[in-house]
Amino acid sequence: MQLLRIGAVGAEKPAVRAGDSYVDVSDLVGDFDEAFFGAGGLERIAGPVAERIAAGQTHALGDQRIGAPIARPHQILCIGLNYSDHAAETGATPPDEPILFTKSPNTLVGPYDDVRIPRGSTKTDWEVELGIVIGRRTSYLDNVEAARDAIAGYVLVNDVSEREFQIERGGQWSKGKSAETFNPAGPWLVTADEIPDVNNLDMWLDINGERRQTGNTRTMIFDPYFLVHYLSQFLVLEPGDLINTGTPPGVGLGMKPPVYLKPGDVMTLGIEHLGTARQTVVGPR
Amino acid sequence: MQLLRIGAVGAEKPAVRAGDSYVDVSDLVGDFDEAFFGAGGLERIAGPVAERIAAGQTHALGDQRIGAPIARPHQILCIGLNYSDHAAETGATPPDEPILFTKSPNTLVGPYDDVRIPRGSTKTDWEVELGIVIGRRTSYLDNVEAARDAIAGYVLVNDVSEREFQIERGGQWSKGKSAETFNPAGPWLVTADEIPDVNNLDMWLDINGERRQTGNTRTMIFDPYFLVHYLSQFLVLEPGDLINTGTPPGVGLGMKPPVYLKPGDVMTLGIEHLGTARQTVVGPR
Repeated sequence: MQLLRIGAVGAEKPAVRAGDSYVDVSDLVGDFDEAFFGAGGLERIAGPVAERIAAGQTHALGDQRIGAPIARPHQILCIGLNYSDHAAETGATPPDEPILFTKSPNTLVGPYDDVRIPRGSTKTDWEVELGIVIGRRTSYLDNVEAARDAIAGYVLVNDVSEREFQIERGGQWSKGKSAETFNPAGPWLVTADEIPDVNNLDMWLDINGERRQTGNTRTMIFDPYFLVHYLSQFLVLEPGDLINTGTPPGVGLGMKPPVYLKPGDVMTLGIEHLGTARQTVVGPR
Repeated sequence: MQLLRIGAVGAEKPAVRAGDSYVDVSDLVGDFDEAFFGAGGLERIAGPVAERIAAGQTHALGDQRIGAPIARPHQILCIGLNYSDHAAETGATPPDEPILFTKSPNTLVGPYDDVRIPRGSTKTDWEVELGIVIGRRTSYLDNVEAARDAIAGYVLVNDVSEREFQIERGGQWSKGKSAETFNPAGPWLVTADEIPDVNNLDMWLDINGERRQTGNTRTMIFDPYFLVHYLSQFLVLEPGDLINTGTPPGVGLGMKPPVYLKPGDVMTLGIEHLGTARQTVVGPR
């Protein structure tokens, strides 16, 4: 299935994609949130959704806003420098273990929403990433293989980053990762069963139509199953938690000289099987 | 007011302290959560609570469990090395700007709950801290003084930390701060109006009855108002968010040689005006 949330900010309704249309499931589930994933919601709606599609009970998407495909999660975890070629472009050595940092959960916005440059920022940067959505409460997984059952699905995300705040303002990265609008996600969450091989997905990001990032999940240092198993040794993952798994080469910080976002810039990005997104950059509030 | 939550894990009821007794407010508010603080809940319950106390409608605490005084927040932000003498004991130079890191929100437990050593841990450590609870949605505060209105109150916390996970396992601190039970809080949230001077509060922590940490908030490098104003420039604070403001000297990491927690150890801690707490250390699951 492909989950999406449709409607105005804060009033999104849960739906399931059916080609260019969707099935409304807001009578079946409150939201695609911790309670939904934790109570086996995916399994619960599969039958009714299939029946509604068969019965032609679908609606045209039209020009309705698409929000992030999951409700604000308990936590957004991020993995740093997880593509060896991206690590190289930032001047860092590839890590021996996954580097964990976090984003404030209220950074989550829809795939076509504006991204706002924070006040005082001169180094706002882009990062196309594969996002993992956790499907059940997960702690101390026995092995990497067990991580498969812990993953609800995958989503396209943009791990927007302010490099001065991240690197030059006091030592830990979260400070440059948590400004409002800094986590566009979507257009939809694709359940794990619909991804043929999560370790072989092409991904890309353009700025104003010019290709900046090109990558494939096969060059990840630590793959999604490794990451979920690894994180489960340090903390408890809740259903609906989002894990941003790192970005391939081509971020603004890595250009010579570095290039950062300015109001009016348009970011378009995509990952194979996960759809495409488009965000316009706007100036500070 | 002094807010507390009473009852079994996951079924705590909101209450207001009245000496050794409490006023049940579970008929007035769902929980002490984001919705409560964001909708002016503190102001709303003040009148009814005063009336109930006057009418003698209080209940004895007895031996009921006390939970954390706030529901699981949207985020737990932490400030590192915020006491100059603690920075010195860890061998770090005092920071020029607040160091921000985070804890997973599901680390929050009650003030008398057990603290569990994570699997594979040999360096689980204690940190008595002043916690700030945010009272309203807060972004881009104009000045430090404006932070006063953004703070609902204060709470005693123990920012439990695994030093190997934090420092020796890949670069960012959150990895050693987010194990389950790693954020005992309470016994109660004391509203800001009841704290005479938040910049002059004695604090202490004992391990098995032996004094380990002694401090006073007056030796903070960045005080609570500075911190809330500062953080609001980088991210949006939600009502009910918790900010752990750093620890005074005396952590296990700073002892020569370092001393860490083992199953059976008892941590008792307190901050002037905020009560005392007691946690027993238990082994890994």
